[in-house]
Amino acid sequence: MNIIDIINKKRNNQELSYEELEYVVNSYLNNQIKDYQMSSLLMAITINGMSDDETINLTNIMLNSGDILDLSEINGVVVDKHSTGGVGDKTTLVLAPLVSACGVTIAKMSGRGLGHTGGTIDKLEAINNFQVDIPNDDFVKQVNDINVALISQKGNLVPADKKIYALRDVTGTTSSIPLIASSIMSKKLASGADKILIDVKVGNGALINNIEDARRLAKLMVKIGNQNNKETICILTNMEEPLGYAIGNGVEVMESINFLKGESAEDLYVLTTSLAAIMVSIGKNINIKEALAEVIEKLKNGEAYQKFLEMVKYQKGNIDDIHISSKVHSIKSNKDGYVNKIDSLKIGNLVKQLGGGRTNKEDLINHGVGIVLNKKVGDFVFENEELVKVYYGDKDVKIKDILDCFSIDIVNEDKKPLIYEVFK
Amino acid sequence: MNIIDIINKKRNNQELSYEELEYVVNSYLNNQIKDYQMSSLLMAITINGMSDDETINLTNIMLNSGDILDLSEINGVVVDKHSTGGVGDKTTLVLAPLVSACGVTIAKMSGRGLGHTGGTIDKLEAINNFQVDIPNDDFVKQVNDINVALISQKGNLVPADKKIYALRDVTGTTSSIPLIASSIMSKKLASGADKILIDVKVGNGALINNIEDARRLAKLMVKIGNQNNKETICILTNMEEPLGYAIGNGVEVMESINFLKGESAEDLYVLTTSLAAIMVSIGKNINIKEALAEVIEKLKNGEAYQKFLEMVKYQKGNIDDIHISSKVHSIKSNKDGYVNKIDSLKIGNLVKQLGGGRTNKEDLINHGVGIVLNKKVGDFVFENEELVKVYYGDKDVKIKDILDCFSIDIVNEDKKPLIYEVFK
Repeated sequence: MNIIDIINKKRNNQELSYEELEYVVNSYLNNQIKDYQMSSLLMAITINGMSDDETINLTNIMLNSGDILDLSEINGVVVDKHSTGGVGDKTTLVLAPLVSACGVTIAKMSGRGLGHTGGTIDKLEAINNFQVDIPNDDFVKQVNDINVALISQKGNLVPADKKIYALRDVTGTTSSIPLIASSIMSKKLASGADKILIDVKVGNGALINNIEDARRLAKLMVKIGNQNNKETICILTNMEEPLGYAIGNGVEVMESINFLKGESAEDLYVLTTSLAAIMVSIGKNINIKEALAEVIEKLKNGEAYQKFLEMVKYQKGNIDDIHISSKVHSIKSNKDGYVNKIDSLKIGNLVKQLGGGRTNKEDLINHGVGIVLNKKVGDFVFENEELVKVYYGDKDVKIKDILDCFSIDIVNEDKKPLIYEVFK
Repeated sequence: MNIIDIINKKRNNQELSYEELEYVVNSYLNNQIKDYQMSSLLMAITINGMSDDETINLTNIMLNSGDILDLSEINGVVVDKHSTGGVGDKTTLVLAPLVSACGVTIAKMSGRGLGHTGGTIDKLEAINNFQVDIPNDDFVKQVNDINVALISQKGNLVPADKKIYALRDVTGTTSSIPLIASSIMSKKLASGADKILIDVKVGNGALINNIEDARRLAKLMVKIGNQNNKETICILTNMEEPLGYAIGNGVEVMESINFLKGESAEDLYVLTTSLAAIMVSIGKNINIKEALAEVIEKLKNGEAYQKFLEMVKYQKGNIDDIHISSKVHSIKSNKDGYVNKIDSLKIGNLVKQLGGGRTNKEDLINHGVGIVLNKKVGDFVFENEELVKVYYGDKDVKIKDILDCFSIDIVNEDKKPLIYEVFK
């Protein structure tokens, strides 16, 4: 087989066989296929697409490129949740204790972030001394003891995706639906959970901008999951504004704690209880109404928060010492009106500019910086009323750049729904 | 400006501005844009295309990336000819003396080949001691003395094309019509001729397989030439079988000498006299009929051959010593019938396999090896009659592989015309 013939085939919009895709992935991993050839093929795939069969094959080939975790020593049905990534998305921090308080096992490995803000692991590390790098035996023991653990990725999971994703990131090929589907699903299948819930974010600030692409992606991932005998559910949710109030590592942990104590932004509450209900429903094989009732009960009676404290303690974190910068300034609105839009992408990039996110894998993160909204879409703001608080460190952001993130007008635009659709 | 934004724009089928294309070419030349980013963009261009304006802009940006030759010291109108490359294409060897014998100046720089067989320069080096690397003053003197010179490329012409072409060659992006047009025209414009004739080969064994693509390419190159105030003519010619009888370096020189002495394959005769007539017509501003009559006269009266001898002598070649292997074997047909097809690409690759072409720029060529056809398309061949002679060296080819190049059948298929169309 020959990479040029394979590139030409995809350039001419023909379907690649299992053997051809296997040759591509393996030869790229061992450097026989060069970056410049792979990126050419990836662009041909991005423009011409892939069939469902090609996508399923690619997923399985990538899945088999590295370790596949075996969670069989863990008792109970393990349910995993993944988000395609949004600004201010702290749902994992909240869901893990909430769902496990309902009796569903959460044994989750998360990544560090590359982009606007940190990933779940970075957020957890804003809790002083919180341990994320835990040996396998201790991980299994913790999950069997307290039903929940959030740790950093271990093993060499899907090395093909790591290498291909890094290339896609710098070659304009991140938007391909089949490539996104195979990237996400190969990682989820490798991480060993029994059932999978995926939150597909749609809108400005998300990987996917339009609902049609999101639907295609959701259907494709459900199909891939089912082909691999893992019950998979996709939920399409609105990402037109940051989720909740806080964007940044320490400030998001703080918001998560407040949430578990019963204080929450509406969108964060609606999304988190919905996701939790689905996870509890598939984890315990009960109907969604029953599951939702249980979720709300565990939230209200404080058991979810207790579970969070239990997890932090087990992983040696000091809940009384969360990194949040003491340097704060308030930015005020320069006019009266309704907040009609908040540009998530811009806000995310400003947090990155503060030092809260990474440009390169090696970059150190400042866990204490962040932006906390005082107003969400639909709220009315008066001139000189606070719009956001900026928690800054060595670097600060310009007031004008913050104001540019907000569209404020005397006419109140209709707000889009938070949850669009569920695919299973 | 940012390469990812530019890639995304072309991926979404939008037009790139002059400034964006200039940024791409210059940043790629100075290694700020990486190979893997350039190949991703090239694939997006290959699939989504470029407008005429984009192609004209890209050509001029590439043209200005290096030296532009100044032939103003040369007397008379300099006419250049280019072929998009075909198997057995020895027309330059024949045209240069023929056209200059008619009084039109030929000051031509040619390349070495990368592919099936050598380029014009490799072919000339099959003549013992023929000098191709000639200082500029001597080159100008030779052209002003005898009206013709064929030398190797000098100066740093279109370095952007060199770098981009090398990448296209290994990333499945050679078939893009706008990229081919800008590559050819930037080089032709940089080589300083006053008028340009381009022979666009169409068919199996050529860069362009179908007539629609060839037409698009021809029109585009004429437009680019005219925009740059150089009269440009494109001729579309059939490349369904090798041109003439010989494929290989020394054997093609031998066939060229025989041609100039009055002995020729029909297709080589028709093509060469047509090309020569166009060159003489534009070079002397006379009509094509008059030009053709003069061309045929100079061929018949031996002046074209004398001009060839004069050029070889001036460039210190020994006409009595042409590298042709003495190891020859004859391959015979295994059936009776008409030759309906000869696969140029396969034949070309067999000559390369013999050592007559290069895979890498550094490879040494064996000038003596080659394949000489005894039958052309339309000829009848008897079982056990000779199909080809193979001139081999260290390496040989399999009889079966040669026979596979021929489609022989008792039904005589219609032969396609040799010259399809002329664009000016």
